[in-house]
Amino acid sequence: MASEFDLIARYFTRPAPAGLLGVGDDCALFPVPVGEQVATSTDLLLEGRHFFPDVDPRALGHKALAVNLSDLAAMGARPIGCVLGLALPRLDEPWLAAFAAGFHALADAHGCPLIGGDTTRSAHDLAISVTVFGAVPPGQALRRAGAKAGDDIWVSGELGAADVAYRLLDGQYPANPALLAATRNALEWPEPQVALGLALRGVANAAIDLSDGLLQDLGHILAASRLGATLEYARLPVAAAVAALDDAPRRRAVLGGGDVYQLCFTAPAAQRQAVLAAASAAGAQVTRVGQTQADPGLRVLDDQGQPLADLPAGFDHFPAA
Amino acid sequence: MASEFDLIARYFTRPAPAGLLGVGDDCALFPVPVGEQVATSTDLLLEGRHFFPDVDPRALGHKALAVNLSDLAAMGARPIGCVLGLALPRLDEPWLAAFAAGFHALADAHGCPLIGGDTTRSAHDLAISVTVFGAVPPGQALRRAGAKAGDDIWVSGELGAADVAYRLLDGQYPANPALLAATRNALEWPEPQVALGLALRGVANAAIDLSDGLLQDLGHILAASRLGATLEYARLPVAAAVAALDDAPRRRAVLGGGDVYQLCFTAPAAQRQAVLAAASAAGAQVTRVGQTQADPGLRVLDDQGQPLADLPAGFDHFPAA
Repeated sequence: MASEFDLIARYFTRPAPAGLLGVGDDCALFPVPVGEQVATSTDLLLEGRHFFPDVDPRALGHKALAVNLSDLAAMGARPIGCVLGLALPRLDEPWLAAFAAGFHALADAHGCPLIGGDTTRSAHDLAISVTVFGAVPPGQALRRAGAKAGDDIWVSGELGAADVAYRLLDGQYPANPALLAATRNALEWPEPQVALGLALRGVANAAIDLSDGLLQDLGHILAASRLGATLEYARLPVAAAVAALDDAPRRRAVLGGGDVYQLCFTAPAAQRQAVLAAASAAGAQVTRVGQTQADPGLRVLDDQGQPLADLPAGFDHFPAA
Repeated sequence: MASEFDLIARYFTRPAPAGLLGVGDDCALFPVPVGEQVATSTDLLLEGRHFFPDVDPRALGHKALAVNLSDLAAMGARPIGCVLGLALPRLDEPWLAAFAAGFHALADAHGCPLIGGDTTRSAHDLAISVTVFGAVPPGQALRRAGAKAGDDIWVSGELGAADVAYRLLDGQYPANPALLAATRNALEWPEPQVALGLALRGVANAAIDLSDGLLQDLGHILAASRLGATLEYARLPVAAAVAALDDAPRRRAVLGGGDVYQLCFTAPAAQRQAVLAAASAAGAQVTRVGQTQADPGLRVLDDQGQPLADLPAGFDHFPAA
C-alpha cells in the first residue's frame, strides 16, 4: 500500500529551500518577491506524441522541465519553483531514478526546485505534466502583444537541428547516423534561455519561444501585436548540420521546425546595442533576422529580395485527418 | 493548422479578470495579495484510472477542478486561479463544451479563473492536469504537521457515498439503481470545502482532505505530527444510503473510501465552539470523531469501546500485482 508514496519520497522529495514548503502536504507554499507578480506555465507531455517511448529518461526529465522554463524565459520571468504530475504505465525504478536526476539537475541549474507533485498509474502511455512558477515585476513581462511597427526581429541560438533529429528518429528521413549525432542534442537536451529572457526586460518589446516553429510563433507575436513582418532567409542562424542539407528539408527545419526552445523577440532598432549587450551578459547568441511593419502578413525574402513561396506550416497537434 | 488554437480559444479563453493575464501568452500572470504566500497543488487525472470513460463531461470538468480546490481548502488558502492541461484522444466539440462548462462553473463559484493551459492530442486515453494557485498569509496555512496530542479530530460532511458509487459503477457490487442514485453525486460532483478551510485558519492545528480515505489521510496527519489517534466508529458521519448497507461494505466505504473531498482536521478541545462557529459561517457540517494522542498508532473503537479489527486499507494507485 505504501509503494506510491515510497516512490515519490525516494525520487522526488528533496529538502525544500528556505521559505518553500515542498512535497508532502496538500499544497506546496512559496513566497513571491515583494511587488512582483507570478508567471506560470503548464505543459502536458505524452509518450508517442511529444517524445519517443525509448527516449533516455534522463533527457526526458530534463526536457519536461526545459519546455516550461522556456515559457518563463519568453516572459522574462525569474524561476521560483515547479510541480510535476507523472502517470506511469509501470513501476521502473532505474527509469524513475534517471528521470528524476535529469529533472533535478536542470531545476538546480535554474533555481527552480520541485515543490509538489502527483504520481499515478496510467493504463497505456506515460504522461508528464509540469507547471512552473516565476516572478516578474508588473509591467516588465515580455508580452506577445508588445511589438511595435519597425522593430527588429531577433532569434537566439540556432535553428533547424531539432526538426531534423525528430524526422530521423521518426523514420521520415533515411537513417543517417552522422546527421543524427549532429542534431540529436538540440531535440533531447534543449537549454531554456532563462538568462536571456531576464536580460531582455526593458530592452525587448515582445518575445515568444519557438516551440511551434519560427513562422508560427512569430505569427503569434504579429497577431497579438496586429503587425506584419519581413524575414531575410539568408540571415537566419542555421545549425551547421542543417545548413548542409538540401533546400526543402533545410527550409522546413529552419522556418517550420518546432521544439526549439530558443527565443524570438522584437526590439526597437535604437536598442540594437542593448540587445547585444543583454545577450552577451546572458551568454547567449542572438541574430537579427528581419523587421516588423504595419502591413499585415509575414514575408520571407530570399537573398535576391524575392519572397519565398511554399512556406512550411508550423507544428499542429491536431493535423487534419 | 489552426484547429488546436481555435479549440482553445473557443472553449477555454474567457476575459481575464482585472490584474490577471489569461490564456494567450507564454505564461499567465497573476498578482498575489501583499504579504501572502502562494499555495499550489497539481493533479493528473486519467481516463480508466480516475474516472470512467463514459462519465458526464460536465461532471468531469467540475471534478477535475474540485479535487485541486479541495487541496487549497485543506491548506486554508484562498483561490487565485488555475491552469489546465488536456490531452484528448479525439476532437469532440459537444464533449469539450460540456467539460468547459462544468469547469468554468466551479471556477466562477470559487473565484478561481482559468488563466492558462495546454491542449494536445493523446494516442489512447484522455488525460487532464490541473494546477491551482491560492494565497495564504505566512504561518496561517493548515499543515499536516501541526496536530498536537489531545487535539479533537473532526471531519466535514458525510463519508462513504463516493466509495459505494464507485464500486457500483465499476461492477464490484451488484447493480442497484436506487443505491447508485443516492450516492453518485458524491462521486461525480464533490463540493470542495474552500470556505471551511478559510474559516479554520487560526482555529484548526492541522488539516487534510480525504482524497485517499479517512484512515490513510488521518494517518498522513499523524505521521507528519508524530502522533497516534483514536477514532470512535459510531461517531463517524455516514451518508444515509451507506448507513443502510451491511457491515463490511459500510466499514470499507467509511474508513477506507477515497475520493471524498471533505476535510479531516484537528483542533484543541478548547476550540470546540470556535470550530462549530467556523463551520456555521462556512455553511459546512462538521462532526467530532476522535482524539489524537502521543501514543503512536491509529485505533478505531466500536460502540463497546473495543478496537475494530481488519481495518480497510486506503486507496493505492499502485496495488501490488
